[in-house]
Amino acid sequence: MLANSAVVIRRARRDDIQIIVAMLADDPLGSGRERIEHPLPPSYFRAFEAVEKDPNIQLVVAEQGGVVVGCLQLCILPGLSSQGASRALIEDVRVASHCRSRGIGEQLAQWAVAQARARECRLVELLTHNTRLDAQRFYKRLGFQPSHVGMTLRF
Amino acid sequence: MLANSAVVIRRARRDDIQIIVAMLADDPLGSGRERIEHPLPPSYFRAFEAVEKDPNIQLVVAEQGGVVVGCLQLCILPGLSSQGASRALIEDVRVASHCRSRGIGEQLAQWAVAQARARECRLVELLTHNTRLDAQRFYKRLGFQPSHVGMTLRF
Repeated sequence: MLANSAVVIRRARRDDIQIIVAMLADDPLGSGRERIEHPLPPSYFRAFEAVEKDPNIQLVVAEQGGVVVGCLQLCILPGLSSQGASRALIEDVRVASHCRSRGIGEQLAQWAVAQARARECRLVELLTHNTRLDAQRFYKRLGFQPSHVGMTLRF
Repeated sequence: MLANSAVVIRRARRDDIQIIVAMLADDPLGSGRERIEHPLPPSYFRAFEAVEKDPNIQLVVAEQGGVVVGCLQLCILPGLSSQGASRALIEDVRVASHCRSRGIGEQLAQWAVAQARARECRLVELLTHNTRLDAQRFYKRLGFQPSHVGMTLRF
């Protein structure tokens, strides 16, 4: 893989699940939450099928030189507020640890923002953990405001 | 309406749209975003139809003594992270201004948490504006942690 070859953003396929889960797990917060086994637990495949069936959700990967180097999930959510404009929610953004600082995350995020505009959203939102200061700087650079508190309840 | 009569949480109907939008607008942040006209702009009705068609989204109202006094939208979002567990997102929580401090918001939020558990989510998340200190205290009391920064980009 050439670090300077073009990055392509495309829909994730079933055979990308392993590498996506590896990226989700390769992270101080994600490592305790995922189960990296061969084969992966079937719950990942069931979730992928649910994502694929949902017309409002796009799970995409960034591919460089034929290798998956990043992922992002975008949800377009209808709702009444803001005069009935849909909202876009960005989740599960990851770039493979050996591929950071090449603008891959930015291309993923800009892809998501462009999709949100194309779907006539008026708002793109995301939660980033309080400890992810780099991510907060990154999104601010792309025009996001740290306007909200992201509150979570885990079972 | 009796302030102490039972609160019922039920799916929103088309004839609730007017009162839901009025609650969304009756708010320092929402007032500039909504258009209260009679009839309402058709975009609200189109959004309601999109919400109704989406099996992952529930827009509910709290009704007390036959009167709508609150609303909440719950999205159940499949995704690969956390071993393929779905995530629940709470949006657009409002209680009519003359009905606050009666536990209606708590019943709405607890309904959403119970739904998230029933749908086998491992995480419930929401964004609340930095200025909504009362809302932050309210969600902390229900067990939510202010673990994330909620970042937004408005078009």
